[in-house]
Amino acid sequence: MSKSAVARVVIVGAGFGGLAAAKALARSPVELTIIDRYNYHLFQPLLYQVATASLSPGEIAQPIRSILRGQANARVLLDEVTGVDGARRSVRTAGGSSVPFDYLLIATGARHSYFGKDAWEAVAPGIKTVDDATRLRSKILLAFERAEGETDAARREALLTFVIVGGGPTGVEMAGAIAELARRSIVADFRSIMPESSRIVLVEAGPRLLPSFPASLSEEAKTSLEKMGVEVRLGQAVTDITDDHVMIGATALPTKTVTWAAGVRASAAGEWLGASCDRAGRVIVSSDFSVPGHESVFVVGDTAAFNGPDGKMLPGVAPAAKQAGAYVAHLIDAKVRGRALPHSFRYSDYGNLATIGHSKAVADFGWARFKGLFAWLLWSVVHVYFLIGFRNRFIVALSWAWSYLTYQRGVRLITGSPDRATSEKVSKAA
Amino acid sequence: MSKSAVARVVIVGAGFGGLAAAKALARSPVELTIIDRYNYHLFQPLLYQVATASLSPGEIAQPIRSILRGQANARVLLDEVTGVDGARRSVRTAGGSSVPFDYLLIATGARHSYFGKDAWEAVAPGIKTVDDATRLRSKILLAFERAEGETDAARREALLTFVIVGGGPTGVEMAGAIAELARRSIVADFRSIMPESSRIVLVEAGPRLLPSFPASLSEEAKTSLEKMGVEVRLGQAVTDITDDHVMIGATALPTKTVTWAAGVRASAAGEWLGASCDRAGRVIVSSDFSVPGHESVFVVGDTAAFNGPDGKMLPGVAPAAKQAGAYVAHLIDAKVRGRALPHSFRYSDYGNLATIGHSKAVADFGWARFKGLFAWLLWSVVHVYFLIGFRNRFIVALSWAWSYLTYQRGVRLITGSPDRATSEKVSKAA
Repeated sequence: MSKSAVARVVIVGAGFGGLAAAKALARSPVELTIIDRYNYHLFQPLLYQVATASLSPGEIAQPIRSILRGQANARVLLDEVTGVDGARRSVRTAGGSSVPFDYLLIATGARHSYFGKDAWEAVAPGIKTVDDATRLRSKILLAFERAEGETDAARREALLTFVIVGGGPTGVEMAGAIAELARRSIVADFRSIMPESSRIVLVEAGPRLLPSFPASLSEEAKTSLEKMGVEVRLGQAVTDITDDHVMIGATALPTKTVTWAAGVRASAAGEWLGASCDRAGRVIVSSDFSVPGHESVFVVGDTAAFNGPDGKMLPGVAPAAKQAGAYVAHLIDAKVRGRALPHSFRYSDYGNLATIGHSKAVADFGWARFKGLFAWLLWSVVHVYFLIGFRNRFIVALSWAWSYLTYQRGVRLITGSPDRATSEKVSKAA
Repeated sequence: MSKSAVARVVIVGAGFGGLAAAKALARSPVELTIIDRYNYHLFQPLLYQVATASLSPGEIAQPIRSILRGQANARVLLDEVTGVDGARRSVRTAGGSSVPFDYLLIATGARHSYFGKDAWEAVAPGIKTVDDATRLRSKILLAFERAEGETDAARREALLTFVIVGGGPTGVEMAGAIAELARRSIVADFRSIMPESSRIVLVEAGPRLLPSFPASLSEEAKTSLEKMGVEVRLGQAVTDITDDHVMIGATALPTKTVTWAAGVRASAAGEWLGASCDRAGRVIVSSDFSVPGHESVFVVGDTAAFNGPDGKMLPGVAPAAKQAGAYVAHLIDAKVRGRALPHSFRYSDYGNLATIGHSKAVADFGWARFKGLFAWLLWSVVHVYFLIGFRNRFIVALSWAWSYLTYQRGVRLITGSPDRATSEKVSKAA
């Protein structure tokens, strides 16, 4: 430890929660280690735009090292955490390191959950990582390419059917973006098929889209999507997914492209700690985000189940993760300096935004609700503002302006081997 | 065939040569099929900037369908050609299609050649495709990351040694770009290592860098690179490459990151046609780019060996491929319309450009030679100008302006599984 540091803080995960904590500890007398298995912080809310060919991965990701470059008390470790040794207060990594801590913050997010149907993962990818998004982009674009060369009408129709499972913000955004891609961006590019005749089906098991929004905005989202030619199927459950169809209830819908936006499961932090978790695998934390039985271990973001004093669960959104990360940082700072602890955590809900498509979005601020162009402009400004890095903000704003005017998609690349998912599996098995 | 079309033209490869031919046939009474195994045209001269984290793949690639959207006589087929049936005049594809032609143009470019040492490919990747470039980018960035966590001094030094094999334009550009990355862009990002202490070694077996340039500019390139801290080793042959060292003559240089920029071999067109090839696998074509024995089959670009009337070989550069592609298109157009054939092909040499680094380049126009800032500005303008798509031109120009001012790299992403090359091999073997 350096002379001025009085405690070692380890942060696992450089998402919204982990990064907010790291920054809030900039002036603390601590030695800070941020561990992430990727070398970049990813702005996940825009990942669906990578999957639908609007943005490049580099435009929504920023190296963690660059972000923390000026923060002398922070070092960054590219490695994957595999476990926590609570007794010896250290974190184990896949790279074979053992990183000691006095305070540990875990903010490792969530992955897709297929409700136990793990076989669905191979045929219905979700969008959580850059590789997920570029793979899904290849899959969507390849479907149109294969349809163009397909002579069998039924197979062509299956190739031009896109199913999105899950009617939350990601599902709504994906359905809208695929509809625009098919009905606007690539309409003139094909000779045999009419991409605008594609079928885009959004399936939600619950009674309405965007369940975290007021019912009127859910209705607005449904109407907007339907105007864009999306079939919205509410109250219908997906019972099986194979590589050539989706079973909705007892009916088979032939399709080659399914996007999973239905469920997530927290990362393995609960197992590392042997802690109590909720059904989604989230660690049940105390009112200061610490883990019962591990006073110096904190969990925030999508990995934590935090029940507010009002009995409401802290939502799994970026602002909540950021606020929680900053709160824990202030708590650790106070403990390290021997100062008074901060007041108990209170979530500031700045509102809820979801975009549907070109000039269409919904916004709920509690005190006011917006829809249409104004909500969409707001959504755009907020998302550009919170992107890290001046270059990214500038280039994303320009890309959007260009797409807005031309309806074109700038990043229509089919990269990687189409069967990469398979080859990775083979490699792991080998 | 449609009513107005009198001949079927098939173009294999949508690089500079194939695309120039397709565009030149826009008003011809032909039915045109462009086959490529990727869905995009790639601006290969800037691919090294993807490999060194300056540009995103999407910024130098454009969907072939978009480019030819307005050309009614053209259709695009995403497929890989596996052979040509000369007698039946058709092209076979991996997708199982048989595409008939009256005229065939092959412009499938070249891949790396390891002079028979195929084992080097796995440890010394070249840069010909988007996947090559993103894989090399991951490899270079991972070397710094691993060095940061490495406690053994010798291993750390090997991780911070970057070897580039081949002193042509690509080798010079890569050496300069890696030197800038290490000594400027990421200097402040690490805590344990000093990236600026990295060793960058450019090995060229011949007596000088940039052999296609005048000797004075070769000397200028060498001096500039040395000022940037690149070790330039001329007249030294690489005799072996393994995953932890390069043998230069009889001396082992420990390194974990080798870039191959030494040799290329033409695609398999010669085998498809059973045609005579030169040592680099290029099809020896007649003065109208036709293949002896196949009057209606033409080969241009890096796949062709074309001896000009002056006895000089047509160089493997984009302008030569474009001119040859357009020439063949005019020839086919004349034949189809029964008009007089064009005069014999004459290459217009507009000059030779290579960039070395920030504000440094060399330019040779025959009538004049430039170096330094002016040559670099010229290089930038020319490369932005020839990029396809307004959006790409704009975003690349902005990215460069930003990098020029800040020395930062915007696209420092380690994506894919680091052992993807291995897993692909496993998958092929399986």
